[in-house]
Amino acid sequence: MKWIYIEDVAGHKDQDIEVRGWVYNKRSSGKVRFLLVRDGTGIIQATIFSAEKENPLFLTFDSLTQESSVIVRGHVREDKRAPGGHELTIHEIEVLQVAQDYPITLKEHSTPFLMEHRHLWLRSQKQHAVLRVRAEVIKAIRDFFDGRGFRLMDTPILTPSACEGTTTLFETEYFGQKAYLTQSGQLYNEATAAAFGKVYCFGPTFRAEKSKTRRHLIEFWMVEPEVAFATLEDITELGEDLIVFIIGRVLEKRKDDLDVLERDIDRLSVIRKPFPRLTYDEAVPKLKEKGSAIEWGDDFGAPEETIISEIYPTPVCVTHFPAKIKAFYMQPDAVRPDLVLGVDFLASEGYGEIIGGGQRIHDLALLERRIRENDLPREAYEWYLDLRKYGSFPHSGFGLGVERTVAWICGIKHIRETIPFPRLLYRIYP
Amino acid sequence: MKWIYIEDVAGHKDQDIEVRGWVYNKRSSGKVRFLLVRDGTGIIQATIFSAEKENPLFLTFDSLTQESSVIVRGHVREDKRAPGGHELTIHEIEVLQVAQDYPITLKEHSTPFLMEHRHLWLRSQKQHAVLRVRAEVIKAIRDFFDGRGFRLMDTPILTPSACEGTTTLFETEYFGQKAYLTQSGQLYNEATAAAFGKVYCFGPTFRAEKSKTRRHLIEFWMVEPEVAFATLEDITELGEDLIVFIIGRVLEKRKDDLDVLERDIDRLSVIRKPFPRLTYDEAVPKLKEKGSAIEWGDDFGAPEETIISEIYPTPVCVTHFPAKIKAFYMQPDAVRPDLVLGVDFLASEGYGEIIGGGQRIHDLALLERRIRENDLPREAYEWYLDLRKYGSFPHSGFGLGVERTVAWICGIKHIRETIPFPRLLYRIYP
Repeated sequence: MKWIYIEDVAGHKDQDIEVRGWVYNKRSSGKVRFLLVRDGTGIIQATIFSAEKENPLFLTFDSLTQESSVIVRGHVREDKRAPGGHELTIHEIEVLQVAQDYPITLKEHSTPFLMEHRHLWLRSQKQHAVLRVRAEVIKAIRDFFDGRGFRLMDTPILTPSACEGTTTLFETEYFGQKAYLTQSGQLYNEATAAAFGKVYCFGPTFRAEKSKTRRHLIEFWMVEPEVAFATLEDITELGEDLIVFIIGRVLEKRKDDLDVLERDIDRLSVIRKPFPRLTYDEAVPKLKEKGSAIEWGDDFGAPEETIISEIYPTPVCVTHFPAKIKAFYMQPDAVRPDLVLGVDFLASEGYGEIIGGGQRIHDLALLERRIRENDLPREAYEWYLDLRKYGSFPHSGFGLGVERTVAWICGIKHIRETIPFPRLLYRIYP
Repeated sequence: MKWIYIEDVAGHKDQDIEVRGWVYNKRSSGKVRFLLVRDGTGIIQATIFSAEKENPLFLTFDSLTQESSVIVRGHVREDKRAPGGHELTIHEIEVLQVAQDYPITLKEHSTPFLMEHRHLWLRSQKQHAVLRVRAEVIKAIRDFFDGRGFRLMDTPILTPSACEGTTTLFETEYFGQKAYLTQSGQLYNEATAAAFGKVYCFGPTFRAEKSKTRRHLIEFWMVEPEVAFATLEDITELGEDLIVFIIGRVLEKRKDDLDVLERDIDRLSVIRKPFPRLTYDEAVPKLKEKGSAIEWGDDFGAPEETIISEIYPTPVCVTHFPAKIKAFYMQPDAVRPDLVLGVDFLASEGYGEIIGGGQRIHDLALLERRIRENDLPREAYEWYLDLRKYGSFPHSGFGLGVERTVAWICGIKHIRETIPFPRLLYRIYP
């Protein structure tokens, strides 16, 4: 008999098939037994109908517990009342294992308990929905860049030097020298952009930050495009296009999952470009007006990001930050050199920063000065300086955090549910 | 004037456009000057024609050196003799930077020199071709799995325990405890497979091996599918389909790059499924016949892989290895429990192993015994054992190494050129 995935059952109407999966739930009603079987691609209602109580299928049915593994063979019947529109009339149940005392029951569990059982929690419907959205977001991102002629250039995880300071770096021994886990592929992207014009890297990044907020992961995935000869405005538009594309794709493909998550879809479908633009200078008085204690020159914290991102129905682009709160490689504004040509995208509904980027310094002397001013070890940046010696070029790029984007799209409070095995402060198990 | 990428120039015949890039080469011929400009998407021949020697464009032309950054404005003309079929008649050259003493000239350089200048070496034509093939291979892999209903489930890089022994692990401090860089996402895949049925992870993996061979990288990318309820035979067929799909895609999309690399394309186009199958028992006498000193029970080394992979015109699948040379989680053969249901795919032309995989143990008691026998810390594997307690299921999967696959497809000798910034024994710069 043919093994069919539940998502494909509709194509096998009136046929005998086999489904392999796990018991999601079951119930009895007089002479009928309903077995809900999940196989990872969907859930199907499988039924046994018998007038005899001693029907062997009833005995098997009775033995089954939540998450027991089974192979169910039966006949596919269309039934508009059944979830998914099709039902399986059971002919045979092959029990692979009866699960004993499955820890995650239908009652409420505490978050620490669920996190400790993340390997099982993944089987639940809400986690399913979030992680399917995640997979779709990642595919959308790759399709977006591949479709626009960007070349994927994987940047290294193990790096010899710090990109933005050493305090939040994971260190490891690399055959007798020190190496660090990457915080960003950007510096390497600048080299590949000189070779390929339009590039992106997309991989895990690491921040050894002692932050325990709902927006921080120790290990998270980031996509970073870099475009040779692009300005701040060019990559701001690229960021807008990317976000609009991702939202469109998720609404097209994963609406069912958003429904499971009870996401207010109207909040997503209003998102159109252009997004509102706000300079840092303009943002500060708005923040003060809303009660923030920020002073000009301070970086935004989570509260400031939240305030701004609650003002607008779409993401908002904040630009032209004070140079001293941004990374050493950011290009100064031509008119106001105390400001840099950086942009942060703050997601709507208080979700905060999802994109950070800007234009990079392309003048060799200025970059050398910045490296000195920031007390960075010049020898580690020799290759990076080479990019300003051999055909230097204006260029810009950004990084988009996958997990924050998924949390926002799904409308979930905590970023920890947006990755299969979150790494948090003091949590590295399972 | 409109900024156009060179790959799109053909669509702008008889128009005035702007190209932004770097000087690849130049030559003079009487009253004509030829400037070859690359922008990362292609190379275009831009020409200046003038009867006057003092033409200011000639003076600019004379000042330009290899890798100088320029914006060239001009008129697109069709010219069948020009590389790419189109030429640019130059109206204006805006010089951004004249590069001084670009280190990589057209003469031959030593490999250590090129590796030290990897950030610039990436601009050369051969590296371009290899890395474009790499990007295509990665896209093909993702399209293959996405198209077959596999769900992308990123597995963690930072892990609390060793998957296959601790001697080749990179260690780091994780907020007061030890963490290790992943060598494989497989164990986590087994958890996500129970949740989603068909999954894959695709990310960087790390081996702190003191190997200095042409087949080893310290940091490499691996795709790992895992399929619930699949047998060794199922995933062997999946591996065949994947390889055939990748080869087909590269031949369709990147033939030009293979030509640059002078790849014998016939060696790739003959690859069809099914691939030859060979048990370990059958392989050993063949190896001895070809001069290997292998004895039954020994693992294959690079020489053994090379011998086998030179026998067949397509990749070959070796199965049923002695249990003691394979990982603790491998399912024993039902008839010969000293063998395990594992499969290695050896690429043709002596390229060696590109896929390793097999069926996993699903019996709780047996897995517990294997963990004891291998002196592994049970507490680190509690969550992994849970997968055998709560609805255990037969399942299989494999890992395909991206860089080895790219090296084979490109027909290049050393794996170090298949990733933008290779990490090798004692090499972590740039």
